[in-house]
Amino acid sequence: MVTISVKEAKDKITKIFMNVGVNEDEAAIIADMVVEADQRGVNSHGILCTARYVKLIREGKMRPNMSATVLKDNGVVAVWDGNHSSGQILGYRAMEDAMKKAKEHGVGVVCVKGANHFGALAYYSQMAQKAGMIGTTLGTGDSTMAPWGGCEKVIGNNPVCVAAPARNEVSPVLDMAMTVVANGKVTNMRRQGATEIPEGWGLDREGMPTTSMKDYYTIPPMAGYKGWGMAVMVDILAGTLFGGGTGDRAKDVSEGPSLMMIAMDIKAFNDEEKYYNDVDFRINELKSSKLAKNSKGILMPGEIEDGKFKASDKSGYVDVVPENLKMVNDIALEMGIEPIAVIG
Amino acid sequence: MVTISVKEAKDKITKIFMNVGVNEDEAAIIADMVVEADQRGVNSHGILCTARYVKLIREGKMRPNMSATVLKDNGVVAVWDGNHSSGQILGYRAMEDAMKKAKEHGVGVVCVKGANHFGALAYYSQMAQKAGMIGTTLGTGDSTMAPWGGCEKVIGNNPVCVAAPARNEVSPVLDMAMTVVANGKVTNMRRQGATEIPEGWGLDREGMPTTSMKDYYTIPPMAGYKGWGMAVMVDILAGTLFGGGTGDRAKDVSEGPSLMMIAMDIKAFNDEEKYYNDVDFRINELKSSKLAKNSKGILMPGEIEDGKFKASDKSGYVDVVPENLKMVNDIALEMGIEPIAVIG
Repeated sequence: MVTISVKEAKDKITKIFMNVGVNEDEAAIIADMVVEADQRGVNSHGILCTARYVKLIREGKMRPNMSATVLKDNGVVAVWDGNHSSGQILGYRAMEDAMKKAKEHGVGVVCVKGANHFGALAYYSQMAQKAGMIGTTLGTGDSTMAPWGGCEKVIGNNPVCVAAPARNEVSPVLDMAMTVVANGKVTNMRRQGATEIPEGWGLDREGMPTTSMKDYYTIPPMAGYKGWGMAVMVDILAGTLFGGGTGDRAKDVSEGPSLMMIAMDIKAFNDEEKYYNDVDFRINELKSSKLAKNSKGILMPGEIEDGKFKASDKSGYVDVVPENLKMVNDIALEMGIEPIAVIG
Repeated sequence: MVTISVKEAKDKITKIFMNVGVNEDEAAIIADMVVEADQRGVNSHGILCTARYVKLIREGKMRPNMSATVLKDNGVVAVWDGNHSSGQILGYRAMEDAMKKAKEHGVGVVCVKGANHFGALAYYSQMAQKAGMIGTTLGTGDSTMAPWGGCEKVIGNNPVCVAAPARNEVSPVLDMAMTVVANGKVTNMRRQGATEIPEGWGLDREGMPTTSMKDYYTIPPMAGYKGWGMAVMVDILAGTLFGGGTGDRAKDVSEGPSLMMIAMDIKAFNDEEKYYNDVDFRINELKSSKLAKNSKGILMPGEIEDGKFKASDKSGYVDVVPENLKMVNDIALEMGIEPIAVIG
């Protein structure tokens, strides 16, 4: 890992996106999102994505600026066609709208079809969390998983994220895909020359368990048929329900992935003071319960990422993967933008 | 298993609940729910529950008839205090209200605190499903699980159920708890004298994996930290958010379990004809994808239960566990109600 300045990274990445025609506001949002993912230690959705988005815009597969069509909107539920705008901006604006709806009606649901790669869902759910709401986001992805009992890649790892606000305790953020492990983990191992993968992480082309990197083809769903079942339901909720892309149709070059954003305003459900007292009490109760033998502690979902983010936010520096930084800096140089400096 | 008549079982169980003061409408709803669980092969939530509910009513821990207080209701979101009425009836009425709200606003959310044992969530989600909506239900349960990294029972297995309607294909119903397997499975094995449990199913009092029935204390969360994370988020959404019971406070004798019911009306999201075409197409696409070696087929979530239900519904008969039937018939006899006849 190499260390860079958070502010500098955001500024330079904003410039990179502006260079391919993204307006300043939207460029700054995308830059904030990708850098924040690295700040949370989620390198797979961090500055690594910069090159991918620049390429999509240059190839005309992603609109540089948002241009969504509102297909339905009754004030509580809305469906947008993202017309292949940036998945990040669509997700950001859709969550903003869901929060606005939730403020008025207690709950708001905004769905987006025809999106693009949307990065880490945590960012969107946390937008609601920071505004005193529970944010739930679901997304479809292109086919990376086989059905339980099947061996063909026909369904995405269809991530789900739920974030709820706490006051003094760490605000929990559950951000998970339906695969046993992230695809990127196995891809990384392969890149590093591994010939074996851990038991339970891989299926071969016939859908049989394998620990051989050579035979590895798909990652099984988490918790077997339960993860498969969840992937199916996310496929319907965040896709089929409103005509969004599922399976291979969720590819950037096809219909694109799709999203469902749900915001629930605490105030519509409870007295805010009581909620914050109760949620802090409950988190503390869970965290201070008896540890298992050899356990290093009980962590809330997202607590590791939260710790990394807070440390980075405080210091103003973030650790990134050298190869990922090189990809960003290669683009910067090509555009005549000063590259992001390595500090340590 | 022994075979009984569906109609007779529902009639007799209705009479049993009326005998302890439940009005005819509510008694019939509870009877329908418990018999339907057996028809779906979910014996743990079937007629077995009859004795439990009768006991709770007799002990004054469950009101015989529903008496809920509406704490909040803005037309889209509502929170009720169930005042320890029947979990089944509260769930039923709450989903009815969520569906009414969804019909008007596209989405409806109804939460219930102070409930009682609510049986299988599938019934409530399927109420929405049968009305052309997507039904999502979440519930808190009393402590059966230890946190990831802990060894103390401080959180429930917090089930989630999502049901979406299809037209010609099987309508998917995902109904799952956050434990690796249902608690009942291990309890059953113990009752049958097993000394060993399968690997991965059990943790001892120190939170270490065990296959010894003697050392078994808790069931681990499904998918490790992911299942733990989901249990935490369900705890907040279906409990803490609106002051509902969590952990040991979700016991019938304490604050009681709590529920969140969400209905989403397809019509607010899509053209109905397009949705049904798309969902049938997608289910068929997934089910007809290439099978894994030795696979018996690709099943939608809930497809096994759906097959059992349809067969039972067609024949008019249902298979139940002999011990469970005996418990019901013992109560019937005691009340002077003719017992349910065993047909085969």
